Amino acid sequence: MTIKSATEPLSNVNMRIEHDLLGDQTVPAEALYGIQTQRAKQNFDISGMPISHFPELINALAMVKAAAARANHQHGLLTDEKADAIQAACNTLISGEHHDQFIVDLIQGGAGTSTNMNANEVIANIGLKKLGFEYGQYTHLHPNNDVNRSQSTNDVYPTAARLAIVFAAQNLKTAIGDLQQSLGAKGQEFADILKMGRTQMQDAVPMTLGQEFNAFASDLGGERTSIDHACSQLCEVNLGGTAIGTGINAPSGYARLAVSELANISGLPVTLAKDLIAASADMGAFVTFSGTLKRLAVKLSKLSNDLRLLSSGPRTGLAEINLPAMQPGSSIMPGKVNPVIPEAMNQTAFQVMGTDMTVTMAAEAGQLQLNAMEPLIIFNLLNNCRMLDKSIRMLDKLCIRGITANEDRCAQHVENSIGIVTALVPHIGYDNASRIAGQALLSGLGVAELVRKEQLLTDKQLADILSPKAMLQSA
Amino acid sequence: MTIKSATEPLSNVNMRIEHDLLGDQTVPAEALYGIQTQRAKQNFDISGMPISHFPELINALAMVKAAAARANHQHGLLTDEKADAIQAACNTLISGEHHDQFIVDLIQGGAGTSTNMNANEVIANIGLKKLGFEYGQYTHLHPNNDVNRSQSTNDVYPTAARLAIVFAAQNLKTAIGDLQQSLGAKGQEFADILKMGRTQMQDAVPMTLGQEFNAFASDLGGERTSIDHACSQLCEVNLGGTAIGTGINAPSGYARLAVSELANISGLPVTLAKDLIAASADMGAFVTFSGTLKRLAVKLSKLSNDLRLLSSGPRTGLAEINLPAMQPGSSIMPGKVNPVIPEAMNQTAFQVMGTDMTVTMAAEAGQLQLNAMEPLIIFNLLNNCRMLDKSIRMLDKLCIRGITANEDRCAQHVENSIGIVTALVPHIGYDNASRIAGQALLSGLGVAELVRKEQLLTDKQLADILSPKAMLQSA
Amino acid sequence: MTIKSATEPLSNVNMRIEHDLLGDQTVPAEALYGIQTQRAKQNFDISGMPISHFPELINALAMVKAAAARANHQHGLLTDEKADAIQAACNTLISGEHHDQFIVDLIQGGAGTSTNMNANEVIANIGLKKLGFEYGQYTHLHPNNDVNRSQSTNDVYPTAARLAIVFAAQNLKTAIGDLQQSLGAKGQEFADILKMGRTQMQDAVPMTLGQEFNAFASDLGGERTSIDHACSQLCEVNLGGTAIGTGINAPSGYARLAVSELANISGLPVTLAKDLIAASADMGAFVTFSGTLKRLAVKLSKLSNDLRLLSSGPRTGLAEINLPAMQPGSSIMPGKVNPVIPEAMNQTAFQVMGTDMTVTMAAEAGQLQLNAMEPLIIFNLLNNCRMLDKSIRMLDKLCIRGITANEDRCAQHVENSIGIVTALVPHIGYDNASRIAGQALLSGLGVAELVRKEQLLTDKQLADILSPKAMLQSA
Amino acid sequence: MTIKSATEPLSNVNMRIEHDLLGDQTVPAEALYGIQTQRAKQNFDISGMPISHFPELINALAMVKAAAARANHQHGLLTDEKADAIQAACNTLISGEHHDQFIVDLIQGGAGTSTNMNANEVIANIGLKKLGFEYGQYTHLHPNNDVNRSQSTNDVYPTAARLAIVFAAQNLKTAIGDLQQSLGAKGQEFADILKMGRTQMQDAVPMTLGQEFNAFASDLGGERTSIDHACSQLCEVNLGGTAIGTGINAPSGYARLAVSELANISGLPVTLAKDLIAASADMGAFVTFSGTLKRLAVKLSKLSNDLRLLSSGPRTGLAEINLPAMQPGSSIMPGKVNPVIPEAMNQTAFQVMGTDMTVTMAAEAGQLQLNAMEPLIIFNLLNNCRMLDKSIRMLDKLCIRGITANEDRCAQHVENSIGIVTALVPHIGYDNASRIAGQALLSGLGVAELVRKEQLLTDKQLADILSPKAMLQSA
Repeated sequence: MTIKSATEPLSNVNMRIEHDLLGDQTVPAEALYGIQTQRAKQNFDISGMPISHFPELINALAMVKAAAARANHQHGLLTDEKADAIQAACNTLISGEHHDQFIVDLIQGGAGTSTNMNANEVIANIGLKKLGFEYGQYTHLHPNNDVNRSQSTNDVYPTAARLAIVFAAQNLKTAIGDLQQSLGAKGQEFADILKMGRTQMQDAVPMTLGQEFNAFASDLGGERTSIDHACSQLCEVNLGGTAIGTGINAPSGYARLAVSELANISGLPVTLAKDLIAASADMGAFVTFSGTLKRLAVKLSKLSNDLRLLSSGPRTGLAEINLPAMQPGSSIMPGKVNPVIPEAMNQTAFQVMGTDMTVTMAAEAGQLQLNAMEPLIIFNLLNNCRMLDKSIRMLDKLCIRGITANEDRCAQHVENSIGIVTALVPHIGYDNASRIAGQALLSGLGVAELVRKEQLLTDKQLADILSPKAMLQSA
Repeated sequence: MTIKSATEPLSNVNMRIEHDLLGDQTVPAEALYGIQTQRAKQNFDISGMPISHFPELINALAMVKAAAARANHQHGLLTDEKADAIQAACNTLISGEHHDQFIVDLIQGGAGTSTNMNANEVIANIGLKKLGFEYGQYTHLHPNNDVNRSQSTNDVYPTAARLAIVFAAQNLKTAIGDLQQSLGAKGQEFADILKMGRTQMQDAVPMTLGQEFNAFASDLGGERTSIDHACSQLCEVNLGGTAIGTGINAPSGYARLAVSELANISGLPVTLAKDLIAASADMGAFVTFSGTLKRLAVKLSKLSNDLRLLSSGPRTGLAEINLPAMQPGSSIMPGKVNPVIPEAMNQTAFQVMGTDMTVTMAAEAGQLQLNAMEPLIIFNLLNNCRMLDKSIRMLDKLCIRGITANEDRCAQHVENSIGIVTALVPHIGYDNASRIAGQALLSGLGVAELVRKEQLLTDKQLADILSPKAMLQSA
Repeated sequence: MTIKSATEPLSNVNMRIEHDLLGDQTVPAEALYGIQTQRAKQNFDISGMPISHFPELINALAMVKAAAARANHQHGLLTDEKADAIQAACNTLISGEHHDQFIVDLIQGGAGTSTNMNANEVIANIGLKKLGFEYGQYTHLHPNNDVNRSQSTNDVYPTAARLAIVFAAQNLKTAIGDLQQSLGAKGQEFADILKMGRTQMQDAVPMTLGQEFNAFASDLGGERTSIDHACSQLCEVNLGGTAIGTGINAPSGYARLAVSELANISGLPVTLAKDLIAASADMGAFVTFSGTLKRLAVKLSKLSNDLRLLSSGPRTGLAEINLPAMQPGSSIMPGKVNPVIPEAMNQTAFQVMGTDMTVTMAAEAGQLQLNAMEPLIIFNLLNNCRMLDKSIRMLDKLCIRGITANEDRCAQHVENSIGIVTALVPHIGYDNASRIAGQALLSGLGVAELVRKEQLLTDKQLADILSPKAMLQSA
Repeated sequence: MTIKSATEPLSNVNMRIEHDLLGDQTVPAEALYGIQTQRAKQNFDISGMPISHFPELINALAMVKAAAARANHQHGLLTDEKADAIQAACNTLISGEHHDQFIVDLIQGGAGTSTNMNANEVIANIGLKKLGFEYGQYTHLHPNNDVNRSQSTNDVYPTAARLAIVFAAQNLKTAIGDLQQSLGAKGQEFADILKMGRTQMQDAVPMTLGQEFNAFASDLGGERTSIDHACSQLCEVNLGGTAIGTGINAPSGYARLAVSELANISGLPVTLAKDLIAASADMGAFVTFSGTLKRLAVKLSKLSNDLRLLSSGPRTGLAEINLPAMQPGSSIMPGKVNPVIPEAMNQTAFQVMGTDMTVTMAAEAGQLQLNAMEPLIIFNLLNNCRMLDKSIRMLDKLCIRGITANEDRCAQHVENSIGIVTALVPHIGYDNASRIAGQALLSGLGVAELVRKEQLLTDKQLADILSPKAMLQSA
């Protein structure tokens, strides 16, 4: 919990010295990162989660740097050797190597400059090694002049973040699809189990348990489409806008070229934003993506709440379904089995909903040509994708797939119900039906019994009206 | 939904002309407000709720103006006539007259200047009338030079808002107290009704329904204390700090004097903040108060959720209690009675919780020596106090007081329960008890029956251990 | 602030008596609403905003009722007379009459039943009058049996709410479009004014004020599309699903027919949801719409913040632009003119952002086959649409259109800037440029001067590199 | 990102087998944890932060277990040997050993049961070793029957969490105190630097930079008191309430004894809650604590915003102060130094504000006798304490202490200001002063110059009124 002072001397053993605007700084001799990464590491110790925690982001950064190198090469701004070295270094990263060299806390000041410089320095040093030079001999391959050529953190960082989020979203979509399939399978399995529907926690009208589970599946039906919609916004990038979107220091034509290379490398439908100045500060796509995760979280939380309600019991609850027992439920109450999996899903959902507000506030805090709070936005979006992905898979595999039905209990609920009086309204009118319902409630008698007693309908009519087939026939 | 242009000509019939920095502006001849109020009315049409919607705020503004007039008079800055006229005008407002003259939208730009000027102008004109002058003859009693003497919006507005919130909080406290009392009365009424407690929606161990309602009452026990704590922070005001807390244009000693007069007039323990510069921009007490309302909302929402759970049914839910029927529940399902009162309480609670975030964001948006978003903060705090006050009274009178218990249902739940196995743990051990519980669940047999069968305990032992008295004896 | 007891006797003078499940209740003799509206009015006094506050909702309810009447008529469930009477009554409402009869608080328990019954009763009574009967003679045209035929609150209420929001969104879109146009016009007006761009509140590189305003316009570019996207989700309705989506009490084929009639009447591309059971409880489209408003609010708040920053001064701020003076800014500081319009816009934005969390929580609180918190969701969405609509028009007309530029000040900022050193990086390298920047900062000398002194570039080169044309040429 | 199936076979090499309600499960032979921990580890993989990430929580759990053991021993429920073994094991944990054995994700279903069982199992196994037995030989010292004797997760877990948060809060308070001291020191250092105050981003009236920094310090003045207030609520615990607060399975008198022992062991003023049933489900103190952190975050964010505003520049901003340069600011703009430290502080603040909403939602989600979402609440409170603690220390050491003033710039701002006209109001009236201010703005002339020209005041009068001493004299 202590913070290292920026001026704290690091041991000189196996250290090399690098230099920047602020002076000298030692760096571990074998580190692929350099002075600016080192300073950032010393400045920021916030979340405990370094960039390396999110491989999608490192991969995306490497793809952006490779695309920029190709575009620079074609513009004659990088020699063949340098361009090759940079691309080779990027490929090394994309293959999963050296991720441990991304040591800066993902939550950082500086609008992502430290993340960008961490990438620039690691790529430069991997490249230097490939070119036969020592780490830190930047005159041969410079983090800023070469790796960051025609670039600024202000276009590289959000571009890479957008790609990283799209990558994370693909995993998430798979998890959602699997969950839907499991819910749908239960819908089929429970297709013939008649039960009472409930509105406002009160008995309503009959349905099947299969319909209920199919509805759970349907309710998630739009989520993958929503994610795709949000991702399509994320694929519009500002690469080539450099510092503030005016494209300063990038040659004419560079932006389109770099973005086109990025599309090739990433395999994503990346396009260039129309107004690069607006795009440099625009957090809209992140806000939309966060809202999409939040909506998904709302639905997952509602689903989890319903599962906990329907499985409440075993003796004093609704007890219409059983969740698989995953662990003993209590340190004091033997035999108690709790709905721990939906409970965990609920908690992930609340985390996502709350941090959507964090993302909102961070987006609102942008000023003039840039939003300095981007790192926090990106942290939460990547982290929430991961938490949702893991939790959905947990819910699917450790809960949904093992759910069983208490068919007898469901049937008993329908038989006792007053709600079936609703089906009589078209035949005896709302006011008569209300009266019958009131009598049933007071007397404990059944609705059909009372209708027969009053000779409002014949037995045949009653049987027809109250047949499950009639009541469930969807409009 | 259209916004009047600021330059839109108003009919000259029965209008008077006033003048300010920006030029001439007509005002209705009989209006007690003046040019600055008129401009603000034209500028702001946001919430649809004018200041007059919140009499507490008008009263508090009048108290502050009266206190300032007294202090100015003692400093020789107002003549006897002017001081008397101002105080008489303030008393008129406090008595409830002329509130319709406070026409500016409570949500406004300008950090409350329009609210302060609305008060200054109305008080000046009431005073002018009392002094025998015409409306608008401000040379005889000036909104700024006299009514606002030694003051700035930056000290008057937050000071008045603090008082207004404290007034609103007193009503709210009464409502909470009444609700607690009703819950406690039910606790007593239901003292002998044995039922199963539930944790995580699963059967736990026995308790009484009386204990459950007493716990509802206890859970609200700290809320009035929390409100008092928050109010004590609100009573620390920056009156006398004027523009930015340096007290410019106020004579030495004025601040203490004005605050002391304000304490007399308001009957509240108002004190002067220590660092007036900090106090001018400090929204801390508002944030704390909002958090206090939010905590209350969380508890009321949880209470409402529990009431809806416990009364779920009538045939397919927990059905341990009945809420009074307040209205037919459905346009299609006859006889359905829904828990509409707790549902309404839930909604108020969600509104309060969401707008706590609004207050938070507005507080965070303060810059340097002032927070320009104060009007929004004050709007939400006053509005939330009112919504909570009304909703709590509704919940108390239209729901809690009419709740009845389904004693048979509660008893039946205990009898069937497996949860009572918990009481056997100290006698047969956790592992044995777990095994018995598992057998009960599978076989449908009772816990006591199985224990007897295995001869783990004698009948006498079982009866002693499972007696309600033994199980409910609070530690 | 007191709540009327539900059993409080109302004066019998000019009252009629109606009856329901709970017994008798008096209603004003001339009221178009009936007993259930009366009960709801007595139960709910929360927000102070009755349904009549939102004409879009009344219109949408009338459209749904008319569509249902047509479908019922075609299914032979309503006579010609009754169907005509209902449609005529709906048209009366749509033409704007009798909106004052919608007296129930928009925030209410019962999942909207009271709103639906308010509509059913008002339509029945208008229809009865047209048919030559007295108010309340429901045997001739019944609120439930006829007006609500084949319907439930659970399909009518969300369907009407969706349409109402879409109507409100159209106004909002117009307001956004106008604002964009005004911003774009300023972009054109300021096209030749060179200024410094800023990132992280620090001098960055040059741009034009025109580019800055064009970016403001561009930043709002996607908002209308986002609203359209959200509206298209809202246009998928569950009408015909009745109580829980199984379509109980509606004849086969009714749902498609009713929805098709609704599309005709409303002129909106309304379609029937695929899974009506899921659709009955699904709040996804509302959550998405709320998120869309929130994103808009984030952008408007950022814009307002930027306007307040750029116009800060007049002497000690950035002072690059002037906002039109709308009212004197201070009760104590003469001549002070504050950015009151953007400040008001900020506050609306914070309200929208906070209540997005309210909507989220209300959506999450749905249980099983219905969400009982719909009224709160709908209240906030309609209210936020209105507040945004009004505030955007205010911002546009009372601020943006009157903005002027301080060209000299902008030019002076560029001349003094160190940020232009960025343009030298491709020519002298990052390390040299850093050194020069550091010297400029310490010495107070200009960047060009130092470069010349060190003979790093020729005068010609310097002039070419630092020409505005070169620096602003977008990639 | 894959989730291990609960039934996935683990390698038997060096494993031991344990048994529970659900059957057999292998555990690493040398693990101090047991079967329930192992199951929980397999079930929950959510946040990536195991319990071991928060040593305060492990220490607090150990203290609770030690206190319970002492109370059980005094009640004759544990032998001397067992009680000694448990206490010795707890001391081992408190000394910092074996924290790596707490492997369950802090975010978990089951209301903390897995955390409690992780502690029970680790303590049992440490104790077994001390007693000379093998790991897993629970007949000699049982996780449930002995270590958890007279306890339930439902009292142990919230009690331990409360203590853990109080411990974390003490560190935080120290950090706040240090920050205040640094701000106060700057207040003293800058006591004589005259500058313009600003309200609503517009020039207001003069103050000193020292006053501004003193106000920053004062603004944090109440935060430590607020934390103490929140901690005093946390110190009221439900230990002894066991499962639902009825104290089932705990002997009479146990609760008071255990709490008294806990006070001794922890050194905190822990007391027993009055209504243990209410206390078992009551999240009020957590909500209050979260609100307290949020309020602190609001203040820190406002402070950071102000620092970024005041240091904006170097050439085109306010530039009244300089923040220490901590790292090069840009990958493309040489010499740019950004306010990275306040930016990082802002981000922590936004995280705390957003997750306060998470805590709120989790608290609201409690049902009946327990809140199953406690783990999420505790995760966020502990994590937010840590992030705030680290960030405040960062802000203090890496930013505040190194701030320097631009005295010339400050002076120049005062000299050019129109705001000083405010001081003339008591002498020439608001209307005259407004006119002068307007002329100054239009003409570019100084206020004093114009007053002299109009001979409204003598030179002597002007000099007296406009002397800094006169203008800054606090009321």
